[in-house]
Amino acid sequence: MHPLPRALPDEALDRLFRTARSYNGYTDEGVGEDAFRAIWDLMRWGPTSANQLPARLVWVASDEAKAKLAACASGTNGPKILAAPATVIVGMDLDFHEHLPELFPHTDAKLWFGDEEARRVSAFRNATLQGAYLILAARALGLDTGAMSGFDADAVDAAFFADSPRVRTNFIATLGVGDPASVFDRLPRPAFDRFNRVA
Amino acid sequence: MHPLPRALPDEALDRLFRTARSYNGYTDEGVGEDAFRAIWDLMRWGPTSANQLPARLVWVASDEAKAKLAACASGTNGPKILAAPATVIVGMDLDFHEHLPELFPHTDAKLWFGDEEARRVSAFRNATLQGAYLILAARALGLDTGAMSGFDADAVDAAFFADSPRVRTNFIATLGVGDPASVFDRLPRPAFDRFNRVA
Repeated sequence: MHPLPRALPDEALDRLFRTARSYNGYTDEGVGEDAFRAIWDLMRWGPTSANQLPARLVWVASDEAKAKLAACASGTNGPKILAAPATVIVGMDLDFHEHLPELFPHTDAKLWFGDEEARRVSAFRNATLQGAYLILAARALGLDTGAMSGFDADAVDAAFFADSPRVRTNFIATLGVGDPASVFDRLPRPAFDRFNRVA
Repeated sequence: MHPLPRALPDEALDRLFRTARSYNGYTDEGVGEDAFRAIWDLMRWGPTSANQLPARLVWVASDEAKAKLAACASGTNGPKILAAPATVIVGMDLDFHEHLPELFPHTDAKLWFGDEEARRVSAFRNATLQGAYLILAARALGLDTGAMSGFDADAVDAAFFADSPRVRTNFIATLGVGDPASVFDRLPRPAFDRFNRVA
């Protein structure tokens, strides 16, 4: 039992963090729209500043869309996208503030984000938080991901967000049931004292 | 039972996402260094690009440090920091690449991050992912958080990272056992079709 009395069971902590891995390949098990919707139904509850919810997600599942995305990827990432059951593009809406009258209705939060550069920083931070919620939501549902930054973001924008030019690609992640044979040796994770301080 | 066969039990999905809230106030239950270490021991396993692990965390728990941090906060955030058992500062190391020979030992990944601006973007993205892992790890351990962007980041840098000028504050989050009386009505979370597309 975990020393913190309200901790989830070890099986859940393992699944979410301790034994979870980023996968380079997946089993043949299909992962489709029911899974995409289930992930959204969890991740959407994760907190963003002023309920911005700036992430715009494209779930790439058809052969045609996979080929289009793979053509934008670097090195070994293209073949990984082609082979994975799906890959999700985590985009961010630089004009997320247009939705705040609905998403944050009790005050005029749209006024807080008039400055373009401040809005870009906020969209990046909060869409990235949502990307992490996506990774953890997938794990909570028994699925696995392989997040990647190695791609040409302008090319992905042109291929998938041409109709919404204020949306920019942040990162992408393959999705499926991970194949244990596809993972590398685990990389080091330093103990608390290396990157933490109590004040 | 969840329709996805490997999903964690509903209790875990609720705790992590569906009934979790951002808290404005906490019970009197103490939350100290054992909890900070337990959160790090989970969150450190979350994926970052090339195992960058750029987050640098300061766990603000003493009265003196709380007062120093509260003085940098906007509006109602100062009193929240003073009243919470602890507040964590999620900083990001703009020179994270100096650690890559140890954290990503099988190749010279330090060479990939020679460009200062690209490194800043990568530090921001990956430290933010780690901030989300922190929020979810706390929830998995039965704790609650209240993440905040409303503060003077330069002032927090000066107060807490003066000895490490390449570390910049990203966001902060109060931490404790949430007081249900302190939360507001839940803000809307749109259904899948609003911000998602299948391609």
